[in-house]
Amino acid sequence: MTVEFPPVEAPSESARREAVARHAVLTKPVGSLGKLEELGCWVAACQGECPPRPFTRPRVIVFAGDHGVARHGVSAYPSEVTGQMVANFLAGGAAVNVLANAAGATVRVVDVAVDSDTPVGDLKVRRGSGSIDREDALTLDEAERAVEVGRRVVDDEVDGGADLLIAGDMGIGNTTPSSVLIAALTGAEPVAVVGRGTGVDDHGWMRKTAAIRDALRRARPVLGDPVRLLATAGGADLAAMAGFLAQAAVRRTPVILDGLVAGAAAVLAEELAPGAREWWVAGHRSAEPAHALALGHLGLEPLLEFDLRLGEGSGAVVALPLVVMATRVLAEMATFEGAGVSGPA
Amino acid sequence: MTVEFPPVEAPSESARREAVARHAVLTKPVGSLGKLEELGCWVAACQGECPPRPFTRPRVIVFAGDHGVARHGVSAYPSEVTGQMVANFLAGGAAVNVLANAAGATVRVVDVAVDSDTPVGDLKVRRGSGSIDREDALTLDEAERAVEVGRRVVDDEVDGGADLLIAGDMGIGNTTPSSVLIAALTGAEPVAVVGRGTGVDDHGWMRKTAAIRDALRRARPVLGDPVRLLATAGGADLAAMAGFLAQAAVRRTPVILDGLVAGAAAVLAEELAPGAREWWVAGHRSAEPAHALALGHLGLEPLLEFDLRLGEGSGAVVALPLVVMATRVLAEMATFEGAGVSGPA
Repeated sequence: MTVEFPPVEAPSESARREAVARHAVLTKPVGSLGKLEELGCWVAACQGECPPRPFTRPRVIVFAGDHGVARHGVSAYPSEVTGQMVANFLAGGAAVNVLANAAGATVRVVDVAVDSDTPVGDLKVRRGSGSIDREDALTLDEAERAVEVGRRVVDDEVDGGADLLIAGDMGIGNTTPSSVLIAALTGAEPVAVVGRGTGVDDHGWMRKTAAIRDALRRARPVLGDPVRLLATAGGADLAAMAGFLAQAAVRRTPVILDGLVAGAAAVLAEELAPGAREWWVAGHRSAEPAHALALGHLGLEPLLEFDLRLGEGSGAVVALPLVVMATRVLAEMATFEGAGVSGPA
Repeated sequence: MTVEFPPVEAPSESARREAVARHAVLTKPVGSLGKLEELGCWVAACQGECPPRPFTRPRVIVFAGDHGVARHGVSAYPSEVTGQMVANFLAGGAAVNVLANAAGATVRVVDVAVDSDTPVGDLKVRRGSGSIDREDALTLDEAERAVEVGRRVVDDEVDGGADLLIAGDMGIGNTTPSSVLIAALTGAEPVAVVGRGTGVDDHGWMRKTAAIRDALRRARPVLGDPVRLLATAGGADLAAMAGFLAQAAVRRTPVILDGLVAGAAAVLAEELAPGAREWWVAGHRSAEPAHALALGHLGLEPLLEFDLRLGEGSGAVVALPLVVMATRVLAEMATFEGAGVSGPA
């Protein structure tokens, strides 16, 4: 099996132009809604239609997986938390559940590589990924299967009516491979990408930096092959997220990106399916230093700077109401002519 | 009549501390929701209760008024637009209506000084304010009555169940007095505060700069008296908004501030009722240069930087979902103990 994505088509330039023109006749000075106008034009372009349709089924998919490197003291939390948090998601008690309820989205959890049994393991690739500082995260076959999991989830969701997608992450230790992948593809040094993750202490930070350095050394020979890179220095959850983000673009479905882990998956997805990034908007810039590198690499400007560093898709969900409002402004505002309002003198 | 506000009490420090403590036991790393956590703590402090209650009646009050200075070429739009936009608000076609619908808020329009008859003129102070580059905006009596209008609107709204308030503005020419008021109280020069407003051209920009310079000269002798300053270089709508923002604090009701015009009113409200600013959060930093000065003067950090410059309260409404989500996170997330999730190792 080899992973191959069909060419990604660009969002509709004609719908984008229609949206720009429509913004000029709505009852407000042209450009006065700033970034909200640009965001609305992007939605129209993704939908290929102006005015854009209100979103009816925004979906958050949380990809859960454990990482062998977490056994080596790179995280503030023990690995068992990954499975416990899957249960918390299913019970509706996690941040992403509360935020999604508030923003009008629904949440699905996919266990790609949790190191314990969960009720959502039907697409599971393996139990935990390898400790990337000393071994491959996955076999090549596992990496391909994980990318396919992400692809399949998009197909299921889009066929089921999802019209906006968010990829969330849950996995103790997952900021380590994410930082490695970003460093590998942006040419950054370990100290430029290492962050505190969930809040590791100074000794953990040093161990994490060393693990990133070692994994980066292992990753360098396979930089040119994204699936091999995911197998060497990523993880099954990251591979699934990369496949998900690539396939969302193939299926012409807009995505709001979350923070560091989604950002790393996005950098890989752009390698898998060049042009996919035009289908994504960056929900926020996280507190993790590597995230800014990923956004810069992808040429994406974040909507929010809220010092978020939780993951789960939470930061993308926090930005969802902004995307919804941008869409509704284009769809629902009165025009100067319709409202009998005079234009500029 | 003299305008006097009772001392403003601070938001509850004990509720804020409870919120900080609660954030530490919710199922996420401490601090990982960044500014959203701070925002939730502020809501708890304003409500005097942790967890905070979900908002049930967020209200946007748009204060409409004309400005004589608009007759002298400082705006891209003719004054008649103010009354036309009041009709547009009442018909639900303006940006603030669409945004408020999306964010779960309702909109009320108060005609304080529109230069034509409107269906919402029962609190009207006068028809248009004077051209501040050459005459007073208002008599002292009118200024006091306008501040009282704002105060009365808060009392009506809070007694009617409003639990979060937003002050919006509508008035062709209103960025000129707003810029003057901010320059007057922050000691800035005219060129440091003048902006494009709704999109004035280069010649209009020069006329606007000259008008600000002339009005600022007239304002300087009355800097120490906020009501006199509003009468000299403000306007009835601005005075009403200042009274509104001061009284919201007196009534212990949180406020999301919009852009330049609300920012100018806020600077005056803090003069009228010192400490009121603790009851406000800045929804965004607008594209108007004077707005950043106002926020700096008040010590407020904006939630969003979206290059908005519309007014109407629109930018505050765009930020409303962030405040709602911050509140719900504190109220609805599971705790580590409740969800059976392990804490840091």
